[in-house]
Amino acid sequence: MADKNPELMEKIVSLSKRRGFIYPSSDIYGGYAGFWGYGPYGGDLGHNIKQHFWDKFILEREDIYPISTSIIMNPQVWEASGHVSGFADPLVECDKCHHRFRADQLEDKNKCPDCGGSLGNERQFNMMFETHVGAMEDDSSVSYLRPETAQGMFTNFKNIIDSFHPKLPFGMAQIGKAFRNEISPRDFLFRSREFEQMEIEYFVDPRDPKKIDQIFSDFYEEQQKFLHEIGLTPAKIHKIDVPAEDRAHYSKKSIDTEYDFPFGQKELLGLAYRTDYDLKAHVGKSSADLSYFDEETQERFIPHCIEPTMGVDRLVMAVLSDAYTEDDLGGEKRTYLKFSSIVAPVKAAVFPLLKNKPELVAKAREVYQMLKKEIPNIEFDDNGNIGKRYRRQDEIGTPYCVTIDFDTLGENPDLKDTVTVRDRDTGEQRRVNIKDIVSELK
Amino acid sequence: MADKNPELMEKIVSLSKRRGFIYPSSDIYGGYAGFWGYGPYGGDLGHNIKQHFWDKFILEREDIYPISTSIIMNPQVWEASGHVSGFADPLVECDKCHHRFRADQLEDKNKCPDCGGSLGNERQFNMMFETHVGAMEDDSSVSYLRPETAQGMFTNFKNIIDSFHPKLPFGMAQIGKAFRNEISPRDFLFRSREFEQMEIEYFVDPRDPKKIDQIFSDFYEEQQKFLHEIGLTPAKIHKIDVPAEDRAHYSKKSIDTEYDFPFGQKELLGLAYRTDYDLKAHVGKSSADLSYFDEETQERFIPHCIEPTMGVDRLVMAVLSDAYTEDDLGGEKRTYLKFSSIVAPVKAAVFPLLKNKPELVAKAREVYQMLKKEIPNIEFDDNGNIGKRYRRQDEIGTPYCVTIDFDTLGENPDLKDTVTVRDRDTGEQRRVNIKDIVSELK
Repeated sequence: MADKNPELMEKIVSLSKRRGFIYPSSDIYGGYAGFWGYGPYGGDLGHNIKQHFWDKFILEREDIYPISTSIIMNPQVWEASGHVSGFADPLVECDKCHHRFRADQLEDKNKCPDCGGSLGNERQFNMMFETHVGAMEDDSSVSYLRPETAQGMFTNFKNIIDSFHPKLPFGMAQIGKAFRNEISPRDFLFRSREFEQMEIEYFVDPRDPKKIDQIFSDFYEEQQKFLHEIGLTPAKIHKIDVPAEDRAHYSKKSIDTEYDFPFGQKELLGLAYRTDYDLKAHVGKSSADLSYFDEETQERFIPHCIEPTMGVDRLVMAVLSDAYTEDDLGGEKRTYLKFSSIVAPVKAAVFPLLKNKPELVAKAREVYQMLKKEIPNIEFDDNGNIGKRYRRQDEIGTPYCVTIDFDTLGENPDLKDTVTVRDRDTGEQRRVNIKDIVSELK
Repeated sequence: MADKNPELMEKIVSLSKRRGFIYPSSDIYGGYAGFWGYGPYGGDLGHNIKQHFWDKFILEREDIYPISTSIIMNPQVWEASGHVSGFADPLVECDKCHHRFRADQLEDKNKCPDCGGSLGNERQFNMMFETHVGAMEDDSSVSYLRPETAQGMFTNFKNIIDSFHPKLPFGMAQIGKAFRNEISPRDFLFRSREFEQMEIEYFVDPRDPKKIDQIFSDFYEEQQKFLHEIGLTPAKIHKIDVPAEDRAHYSKKSIDTEYDFPFGQKELLGLAYRTDYDLKAHVGKSSADLSYFDEETQERFIPHCIEPTMGVDRLVMAVLSDAYTEDDLGGEKRTYLKFSSIVAPVKAAVFPLLKNKPELVAKAREVYQMLKKEIPNIEFDDNGNIGKRYRRQDEIGTPYCVTIDFDTLGENPDLKDTVTVRDRDTGEQRRVNIKDIVSELK
């Protein structure tokens, strides 16, 4: 179990805002509890994580069909799935100040942590955000913001069968926003009210439990590899075999992956064998035919389902806190983000040594334009002195800085058309010929 | 003005569902009026349109900062923006059947189009979806789903200034979902209740009206080029100079671009000069300092803003209807989608001539793997006979089909290691050496 480090958490939140990764939502109005927004670098970081998921789980295989369904669906979806009746957290209210709390997160269940008043009886609070669709605001128009992307896949199972006629096993995937009205949002992006999920529903043949076991453990391995590839330290990742009494009643097997966040070891992603619970629930409510026909054996049945699920924002936060590093470089303290090259928002930055020498700036822009054709996510920067620029690129986690100096222009003829390439982690610089930069950076 | 063609519209909706482009939301529950979902090909089509926007308006320039803000924001944002008080459509209700209608869309304002009953008085119906945030469902917790992405940018103007210190002119951009509780959703994706926007807020120096005019007309040109690049027929695109009486009171100039949809000529995207209305509204409500400091002249002022805005779903629908083509090929009627290569969901498909010849299948998979490294969005297909496969690829708009036949394997030694490449639009096939396919396709 990792130690909690609230000071580190504060530093990450502060750097995230200062450098344009993550801003509090509606900041100029004092924020809005449980809501955040992504600035340019945070957006790129999240995009790179999503892109890697897409490459690995959709593009590189041929058996997973991506879809993108609406956030507001027919409310019958949430009746069938059990969310209307059962997606609730225990809530208690203070009799005195009327503040409300999640009962399972209170250390003392009798006294209000805000005013010391006495707490009332526990009741179930449904976490789905409600809204009304259509021009009549009555019960018939009650609708919900989806609390998960998964149901968008189960309800499109038949559409995918009809359009693509896939053979088992096959999966569906969705990346998209989900909403939960958390009673106590907290821990930065960790428990927010609006977040983004990357979920897969992978359908398997229930007649072959050995193959189901194999597929389950393959997904577990793929999830772990994914976490390593986006740059998380293996020693900070923990496997939690969820015991039967903590699993949903329909779940036959479930492995959570937890991570040492600055605020403690907490769930990062999940993997669950959900049997045929979801498809059957929708058959029961909708009377739709959600069966699969096996042409070989001429049998018809409802497939079982394995669900690997991740949250983009939790991954962003894990990557940020894993990358956050303070060290001494050349006798000065510095902060940098040790991003893997896959997730780094900016892959390289190009500088002229001095901004007031037109020939340096012109050459630097020429190098920048050349590199940008090969590596779109690069930056040109001629603001402030070079030390300040290095510091800024360190703080946004740029792996390499390319500097055009007087030697590049031929002041030392032996070094003409070479540049310095500085390594973020060591701060060391070496000279590279302009024509070799792309291959060096790649 | 284009003729309406409801039959074409039906064909597009039907092909979209059959081939996995667009599905009605919650289909197995009979759908949900105003909500749709994207299948694998529709998702790719939308993604390609968004990627082209991103490449053109963000990556290829250095002056536009992308952000991604929350769908639910502090409700004060919508009070400041004027949406709480003024974002409404005129609603009338039938006294007899109590059905409700948008008054401005009715031909006869007295009689109910559903039952012939008499219609009551017109009232204003706010189109924002309401919800409650937090555990108390009272007025203090009322919140809204954003009806546009624009306000997420105005409310982050100061964050971008503080993180990046940009010089005027500069912009912000956001791609994301927005929600409007339309009284009468209709025309497929055109007037839906949940949709995706791509908006830019471009901030300019109010002291230089000539430059503002130039920037405005540059954006208009860029929008038109964008539409041509994603494959829309120029003759179907119409420029509408919005007259002063139809513009918002703060808008100094506004150009809508309309398109000949199958249901008539309708708005596709917009461009508006919004002055300093939005930033000033947020200064008034929040007391935040949303000014810009010009270091050269040492002046401080609130910038003006030009807003180019597009809807992803309307673009998807325009691209689909522009691409939809029926012709005769080799004496047979066929349907195909004449997508531009930028937006086509699948760039090429690879087939073995016959599926039951292992040597053909093995060679085809080898070619497929080789191509996939260079062009990720390609498909392998060995289902059904080759004619059926061509027909399927035509219907999803794949520009090229690559077929591995016995000559590829050397049955005719002169043709060894060549494949046929079939052109979607002409149906013509030519033989290409395997090592040249990538460059031929590109």
